Amino acid sequence: MDEKYMKEAIKEAKKAWAKDEVPIGAVIVKDGKVIARAHNLRESKQIATAHAEIIAIEKACKKIGSWRLNDCTLYVTLEPCAMCSGAMILSRVGRIVYGASDPKGGCVDSCIKMYEQQGFNHYPEVTSGILKDECSSMLTTFFKNKRNQKN
Amino acid sequence: MDEKYMKEAIKEAKKAWAKDEVPIGAVIVKDGKVIARAHNLRESKQIATAHAEIIAIEKACKKIGSWRLNDCTLYVTLEPCAMCSGAMILSRVGRIVYGASDPKGGCVDSCIKMYEQQGFNHYPEVTSGILKDECSSMLTTFFKNKRNQKN
Repeated sequence: MDEKYMKEAIKEAKKAWAKDEVPIGAVIVKDGKVIARAHNLRESKQIATAHAEIIAIEKACKKIGSWRLNDCTLYVTLEPCAMCSGAMILSRVGRIVYGASDPKGGCVDSCIKMYEQQGFNHYPEVTSGILKDECSSMLTTFFKNKRNQKN
Repeated sequence: MDEKYMKEAIKEAKKAWAKDEVPIGAVIVKDGKVIARAHNLRESKQIATAHAEIIAIEKACKKIGSWRLNDCTLYVTLEPCAMCSGAMILSRVGRIVYGASDPKGGCVDSCIKMYEQQGFNHYPEVTSGILKDECSSMLTTFFKNKRNQKN
């Protein structure tokens, strides 16, 4: 079941890629239904916070009319950064499923183990590594192509 | 000089209070000029990410047409949470000045010392405690009034 929704997040990542954005995508699922889809739009919008997860959370809040996303699962192709891991605490997302790890900026398990810190008022469940090869190879190919364009 | 801009952030916090929102405000300053003002709007908008800092960063990015806020200083009345501390890494904010500490959710110096973690590609300068009594007493009074309303 996680693979099914991660494929939807990968579709979103490919939309980012088509816009020459770093290919990262996210979907939010509630009661078996995708209620929000989003992809990274940092360069197109020139807004630092326009990560797939933040846009998806904002869409989901609007959709259900509440800032509380307790019964939702967020699927994202790459391990969330500090901002996005924090947004998942604030929005009370019940569960996070991510694909590839991000040793350079990931703040769920890599740079910081966000949900092992004491004192927060919400801790999402975490599942990682779902379709990680596909999630990761999109990024590798994207950056390889970028380097080749420069040479 | 920091006090002057913190007073502007406090004005924003009071706007939140007038809307029955937790009174937290922020401004972003570039070249001595306030380029973005925002206050907490979580309840009014029912969006989990609608913290003063995130809204201010988005406004500043739009204003200068870039996701990079290197030459900017962000003033906020309360110590930023994980999401907001992370957003300041992503937006390359040059300097953060906050008023009151937040032992329950602050992620600059309290729950997490965000900018002491290794591996990020940007570290803002931090100044804390500017007009902290005024920043803090707004919050104390707000929550005290809330409790009295319930009784």
